[in-house]
Amino acid sequence: MHRTYSLRSQRAPTAAQIASPPPPPSSTKFSFFGKSSISSSLKKGATSNFGPELSRKLSTFVKMEKNVMRAIELTARERREVAKQLSLWGEGNDDDVSDVTDKLGVLIYEIGELEDQFVDKYDQYRITLKSIRNIEASVQPSRDRKQKITDEIAHLKYKDPQSPKIPVLEQELVRAEAESLVAEAQLSNITREKVKVAFNYQFDALRELAEKLALIAGYGKALLELLDDSAITPGEGRPAYDGYEASKQIIIDAENALASWTLDQAAIRPTLSIRGDYETQDGELYDEEEEAAEAEWAEHNGSEVK
Amino acid sequence: MHRTYSLRSQRAPTAAQIASPPPPPSSTKFSFFGKSSISSSLKKGATSNFGPELSRKLSTFVKMEKNVMRAIELTARERREVAKQLSLWGEGNDDDVSDVTDKLGVLIYEIGELEDQFVDKYDQYRITLKSIRNIEASVQPSRDRKQKITDEIAHLKYKDPQSPKIPVLEQELVRAEAESLVAEAQLSNITREKVKVAFNYQFDALRELAEKLALIAGYGKALLELLDDSAITPGEGRPAYDGYEASKQIIIDAENALASWTLDQAAIRPTLSIRGDYETQDGELYDEEEEAAEAEWAEHNGSEVK
Repeated sequence: MHRTYSLRSQRAPTAAQIASPPPPPSSTKFSFFGKSSISSSLKKGATSNFGPELSRKLSTFVKMEKNVMRAIELTARERREVAKQLSLWGEGNDDDVSDVTDKLGVLIYEIGELEDQFVDKYDQYRITLKSIRNIEASVQPSRDRKQKITDEIAHLKYKDPQSPKIPVLEQELVRAEAESLVAEAQLSNITREKVKVAFNYQFDALRELAEKLALIAGYGKALLELLDDSAITPGEGRPAYDGYEASKQIIIDAENALASWTLDQAAIRPTLSIRGDYETQDGELYDEEEEAAEAEWAEHNGSEVK
Repeated sequence: MHRTYSLRSQRAPTAAQIASPPPPPSSTKFSFFGKSSISSSLKKGATSNFGPELSRKLSTFVKMEKNVMRAIELTARERREVAKQLSLWGEGNDDDVSDVTDKLGVLIYEIGELEDQFVDKYDQYRITLKSIRNIEASVQPSRDRKQKITDEIAHLKYKDPQSPKIPVLEQELVRAEAESLVAEAQLSNITREKVKVAFNYQFDALRELAEKLALIAGYGKALLELLDDSAITPGEGRPAYDGYEASKQIIIDAENALASWTLDQAAIRPTLSIRGDYETQDGELYDEEEEAAEAEWAEHNGSEVK
């Protein structure tokens, strides 16, 4: 992990990065800063210093998350293929190797299935992020409108200070500012709410996938113990394989363990040195938070824009 | 998971499979069976009923595992990219969103790093399988040689039963059979040993990745708690963000938890209903097995053919 505890400005540039530096940052944001401080000091507080590139950044992020999904989907597919090929190879071997590889294949196939289920949940997470992107995009016109009126007033005051249009525009500006205040408050609320819901959902899905994969790894290792790897001498036979019942039982046990796994029984919990609102050590508190997060999730995703 | 507990003959064929059925199985294996029972009954016991297509199946399997590796590598790369983009998007937001998304980015970037480490271990697993493929391939010539001599003797006995070549060939056959017995015993031993070592290694690597991902998910959820998502009204400001220390500490805690994770402290263990040699519930026994597996691993991979 990174000693600077931030992804920003953490890395010395590589030779390739020095050879082809990124394009200079857009100046849009900075000119927006300047103008907005003329237009209204009411804006401070509720609104954030967003530029129009903001919704582009999140759009890009949401698109890139699709690439993550596709890569995991591909992994899942490849895993199911190797699972089948492992079983196919083992079939030509002696009974013990044949049975164990077939059962290993069942477990590895299951990894692929779990990864596919994770992809479905990852998509839900991604869709939740889209609602932040949508509110970001919808806030932009209200900012633009306010800016346009402000510019018009400044222009008229310079060119024709007595113009009767000025008080009309000023009234319009007050309305535009009110609308903008609402939009910025919506943006502030929705961003936080959706970031929390989306990432809680992703992390819950990741925790489920991860704990289930760890379980499968354990059952896989139990299967391997059925394989007698003591060396035989030339001409010597191996004792007949009698592990069929045991291997089947391991798969049944694995199936049951996966089916009965629930988030609130998760075995792996973080150890936090600062205890606070984000406390997750205490099981009960944790469960309450879980339930709240799940209720919130259900609530917000009924009317989700896909 | 699959109710039949096997990957073989478990699925009803799909419409696509019915439309283009797989090619018929090679007949090589079956003709080999027939002839070998003429040539020698010594063969029984130590040798297995392998056909030449066997090393092809394992070769295919080893190649397919490369596809799994590539898919996980791609996932790791995409994850690091989204981590950076998340941090980049968050940077334009208010302090709380900016800090939390940046730290989430650090955690997600770390997932990518862990996946890359897993890929390296997966490659070691794959290389270990190659040694089975190599022994399979090397056993084939000794089988072929024995077969060829057997055929020559049969041919001569029919054409020229008094040929002085026959006793010479018969002596040669005895030597070829001895060599073949050794080769088949080696195949039997190496296959079991390497399957065990390789898959134990894969499952240990998977367990490590999985438990670490579950830890990261937990720390990610702790970070999200720093985000104040209480709704504000238009014009209302949010209290100043004071989570910098806490978020940094969560990342430090996560870093420490990942760095101190060891296989013998793994939290997730399978629940097995049949106890036997494959027992993995008992910590001490487990550790001994782990150490044995690791020693075995080190031993066998010093001289590994890559």
